[in-house]
Amino acid sequence: MRIGALSKRSGVPVPTIKFYMREGLLPAGSLTHVNQAQYEETHLRRLRLLQALSQVGGLSVKQLRGILALMEKPDFPVHELLGQTLLSGIPRSYTNDEYSHALAEVDALISRYRWQISDDSPARIAAAAIVATLCALGTPAHLPMGLLDRFAYHADAMAFGDDTAETPEQALIDAVIGDRLLLALRRLAEENVQATMEKGAQ
Amino acid sequence: MRIGALSKRSGVPVPTIKFYMREGLLPAGSLTHVNQAQYEETHLRRLRLLQALSQVGGLSVKQLRGILALMEKPDFPVHELLGQTLLSGIPRSYTNDEYSHALAEVDALISRYRWQISDDSPARIAAAAIVATLCALGTPAHLPMGLLDRFAYHADAMAFGDDTAETPEQALIDAVIGDRLLLALRRLAEENVQATMEKGAQ
Repeated sequence: MRIGALSKRSGVPVPTIKFYMREGLLPAGSLTHVNQAQYEETHLRRLRLLQALSQVGGLSVKQLRGILALMEKPDFPVHELLGQTLLSGIPRSYTNDEYSHALAEVDALISRYRWQISDDSPARIAAAAIVATLCALGTPAHLPMGLLDRFAYHADAMAFGDDTAETPEQALIDAVIGDRLLLALRRLAEENVQATMEKGAQ
Repeated sequence: MRIGALSKRSGVPVPTIKFYMREGLLPAGSLTHVNQAQYEETHLRRLRLLQALSQVGGLSVKQLRGILALMEKPDFPVHELLGQTLLSGIPRSYTNDEYSHALAEVDALISRYRWQISDDSPARIAAAAIVATLCALGTPAHLPMGLLDRFAYHADAMAFGDDTAETPEQALIDAVIGDRLLLALRRLAEENVQATMEKGAQ
């Protein structure tokens, strides 16, 4: 197909397609005339992946480039990579003490669940930074621990139920879009709890 | 305290503090001299909230302004607001048919769980858009349904276990930072599953 058709079928504007090609995120089409290139279904697929990861998953062009490069390798460490993207947005608005305390809580949790987590796991650091943020915001001391345990229990159950993705691309989609889906369902479940409580109060 | 101390204690640079004041997100300090203002603990608290919501939660200044305005109202609809922020990043890279099909799946799920959800719930629309994105990406037809049910089950269990937040501010923190914490724990649980599988394969 021509670039116009590629744009139409993917919903991605032509300038964005050209940007992705310049950035090396999308292979060039095969030239059929001096100024005309032909694109295949693989281009359409890659384009949809890029849009989903950047817009639904909130990944930057730099993060996309790193992920695409690593996707070619065997043993693609998808969870580590996504752990790093979790970390990138967290401000250091907590003290060293708050962080140490939070890290100890996260490590105690990892032990309780007998999770095998490497010491330099980005998700471990991110979890500690998030708990430290909660503490700095003055959330009562009991809440993070209750939250931590409850969330860990459900995260564990969800991870063990996951179908094994067949390709790195699929693993990436499952993780990034799955995150969004999980949050949307969390919002729906909370809307329901609120509606139920309001009904009960009437 | 003076603005320098406020900056030091919050970890927020002075220019960012001034930006928040100009944008009406942070009240001005009380003037003690012509060119010197005094800030209270309430400023520090608000500042930490702003940083957490913008940097951990990824909310824009426009979204922050909307949320702060609504926080003053009774019956602060926190879940609806956050549902809208979920929606804002999702590109329309699916067909009308894919969206209709996805919405029908989400509605069937809402019925199965007997969730009370309004028709114009932003989280409902967001969930449908995310499922449609998964379909457009060519995820096998059985996966979204399996994912949907499993995520809904756990989202439901987590929502009913939630302590009721005492203030709108707390509800907001629980939801936004809680989302991040949940994703970090999901990443940890997945890292563990992967480590366990690799050990089993050896």
